[in-house]
Amino acid sequence: MPPVAAMQVAILGFEGDRLRLRAPLDRNVNDKGCAFGGSLASLMTLAGWGVATLHIQAAGMQADVFVADSQVRYLAPLYADLEAEAVAAPEADWHAFLASLAERGRARIEVDARVTLPEGGDAATLRARFVAFRKG
Amino acid sequence: MPPVAAMQVAILGFEGDRLRLRAPLDRNVNDKGCAFGGSLASLMTLAGWGVATLHIQAAGMQADVFVADSQVRYLAPLYADLEAEAVAAPEADWHAFLASLAERGRARIEVDARVTLPEGGDAATLRARFVAFRKG
Repeated sequence: MPPVAAMQVAILGFEGDRLRLRAPLDRNVNDKGCAFGGSLASLMTLAGWGVATLHIQAAGMQADVFVADSQVRYLAPLYADLEAEAVAAPEADWHAFLASLAERGRARIEVDARVTLPEGGDAATLRARFVAFRKG
Repeated sequence: MPPVAAMQVAILGFEGDRLRLRAPLDRNVNDKGCAFGGSLASLMTLAGWGVATLHIQAAGMQADVFVADSQVRYLAPLYADLEAEAVAAPEADWHAFLASLAERGRARIEVDARVTLPEGGDAATLRARFVAFRKG
């Protein structure tokens, strides 16, 4: 995917249902020297898409995963590399999501993502809904 | 701005309070061959940022403009170049925004943006709030 290559996104880890991604500031900087809002939103959306996709693969299925809608809050300027993490939203349930995908061929899940600040706290947060359609 | 260069964003026009931007599909494509959600969100955010910045410059002022929050709806896959347009939200008012920026040195405005489909309708819509801080 060219936009992901341009952002130089790297996977930091996937442990305990949490996917962490990283992208360097110098590829994602705005006119004010801090992280570009579009890159913050993209990285959080990618982390959400990735955490859903990884759960589907871990369950032995394949699916096309689409983002349906999202809300982003930009909380503080970030003058460092971008580190995003995504998990299921508190009210979401991976078991129900995977069961629906297995039985009905489609499923929805709500995901929370954030980009952290080096000094603690968040640069931005995202809540997004993803829809999966089973393939093959 | 490296992410904007990577997306190959071009200005299509600014007329009647409406800013239109374009970005080629091949630089902004996802794993499914359609426009990447992050690029759709970035292009709409850029269009919103741009329409606020252009109004400020047209009023003879300079300001740093930040996105504060946004809501995106992804409505249909887009298999063509990305064309985004941004205008003030129906309840927003450029005169009040510019007056606040001139008098108080800061102002907020709500912006609507969308990426259109070649066949009509929208691929995605965004509503976002921008904050401007006057410089110089």
